[in-house]
Amino acid sequence: MAVYTPVSDAALDAFLADYEIGEPRALKGIAEGVENSNFYLETTQDRFILTLFEKRANPEDLPWFVALTEHLAKKGFPCATPVKARDGQALRTLEGKPALIVEFLTGISPRKPNIAQCRAFGVALAQMHKALEDFTKPRANDLGPDGWRALWSARAKDADALEAGLSDLISADMDLITGHWPAPQALPTGAIHADLFPDNTFFIGDRFTGAFDFYFACTDFLAYDLAICLNAWSFEDGAEYNFSKGHALIKGYQSVRPLSETERAALPLLARGAAIRFFLTRLVDWYATPADALVEPHDPLDYASRLRFHRQAKGAEDYGA
Amino acid sequence: MAVYTPVSDAALDAFLADYEIGEPRALKGIAEGVENSNFYLETTQDRFILTLFEKRANPEDLPWFVALTEHLAKKGFPCATPVKARDGQALRTLEGKPALIVEFLTGISPRKPNIAQCRAFGVALAQMHKALEDFTKPRANDLGPDGWRALWSARAKDADALEAGLSDLISADMDLITGHWPAPQALPTGAIHADLFPDNTFFIGDRFTGAFDFYFACTDFLAYDLAICLNAWSFEDGAEYNFSKGHALIKGYQSVRPLSETERAALPLLARGAAIRFFLTRLVDWYATPADALVEPHDPLDYASRLRFHRQAKGAEDYGA
Repeated sequence: MAVYTPVSDAALDAFLADYEIGEPRALKGIAEGVENSNFYLETTQDRFILTLFEKRANPEDLPWFVALTEHLAKKGFPCATPVKARDGQALRTLEGKPALIVEFLTGISPRKPNIAQCRAFGVALAQMHKALEDFTKPRANDLGPDGWRALWSARAKDADALEAGLSDLISADMDLITGHWPAPQALPTGAIHADLFPDNTFFIGDRFTGAFDFYFACTDFLAYDLAICLNAWSFEDGAEYNFSKGHALIKGYQSVRPLSETERAALPLLARGAAIRFFLTRLVDWYATPADALVEPHDPLDYASRLRFHRQAKGAEDYGA
Repeated sequence: MAVYTPVSDAALDAFLADYEIGEPRALKGIAEGVENSNFYLETTQDRFILTLFEKRANPEDLPWFVALTEHLAKKGFPCATPVKARDGQALRTLEGKPALIVEFLTGISPRKPNIAQCRAFGVALAQMHKALEDFTKPRANDLGPDGWRALWSARAKDADALEAGLSDLISADMDLITGHWPAPQALPTGAIHADLFPDNTFFIGDRFTGAFDFYFACTDFLAYDLAICLNAWSFEDGAEYNFSKGHALIKGYQSVRPLSETERAALPLLARGAAIRFFLTRLVDWYATPADALVEPHDPLDYASRLRFHRQAKGAEDYGA
């Protein structure tokens, strides 16, 4: 939520000399993206977003993210398309950090997506999965079930401090979910966004205009991406599942890519797993963020509440599928 | 350096309905301005900056700041011009905060202004003072010599923690400066910016394209504004006075508004006073900013070093005048 690396006018001039996108006219640090430094960049030719990757980003992963968004752009999926320098490279260096210029996307992130937006988003999510069908280079999901135990072991005590008895509930969930998690080949798999919350999307009115912040993208079950989005788009005020929104999202999704019976059957478990994943990272951030920081961390208990819904869900129809 | 108040898409839609500037197309929190929340706002018609005034801004002062920049804009001085809503009012309310839309200024703030930029800036500063000659509504300078003691009494001990013996030096400076400060009618007075550092200006190449962040503006000696700018523009790496830059700045200034003999004679004392003012507020911010905050406070010792230069300056010619 802040600019970590300032960019000087002189460094920017030297950096842009390697591109054919005109002379700089404005550069403003954007208070978006927790992991990286983002800038609104205006040149004599157009508007762009400039990203400097900070130390939490693994430099080895960056070419994969760039290739992914280039692939999506080529397929016509609306996302922040990387801009190449004269040498054909999109990923370069500025102020000593890996740096990337992407095209500017218009649109505004919805705070509380309405039903029409949920439907349009479901369509877009499936279109994204379709567009990535032939993007076959894999990237492991560091925050999948195999990564949960490491996050959890250090934080289980903190969960009880948030809510008495929560630690046992989460542990039991994790045992059950990891015990029943689908085998690698059991469900259709591909590149997924894995963090496509409303604030990583843009809309103009009810029209979806783009997705961004692909830096958790990885290879995983396509239905798991949908399950993440059901958690992110269809709960109101933390806990309550809005069936109409979930129904609209899934209906939109299926209008492009119908779910198989296996995917439908797996949906409640995948949704429960997605809730665990966001509960865990929020729990870590909750205790890692200083009390007086300018960024307010997300409340992990929102996901503890979502888990209550997922525990009682019996099938995809409980989500509106 | 962060967005304090988030603005939802729904609130923005309702807010913009009172303007005639088109439909919203993009809204991005800008990591600029320590005091307020600033957003890059794009509509179907144009680009703007949206500011929400946070609690450190005194709501009673806001109409004065708006009137000041409207006055400057009318005179053709390049600054962020307030945009009026349909009812003729520029100052409105959004997300429960006083809110203002201003026009978008192109340009980039120079990190280390060069000599040509210093000269262009000197010209612009004098043009601003000229443009404000008939802006006669007064606003007291809260951070003038009368305000120093209150800041200092709580922090004198901290100065010694920064550098042994510094507290006595600063106290002696303050006694001398306040004892010799010009009487209210002794020097030409008017509305001044009072904080016109390079990062509150924009340039395209060596051309000055605008000034912004007028929220410390007040009524004071015009030569004091120049003295503030000599501190802000003409020292290198904290301590060393770059005579060529100071000379260029003053020469540019005098090409529009020549200094009187009284102003020339007062310049060393005014420059020393300006250094005290920024030393004091930086000292307060230095200890008020949590060690793990994302914003790095400015080092107050930069101004302790500038004071060493000011103490030995004998006349305006030592600054290049």
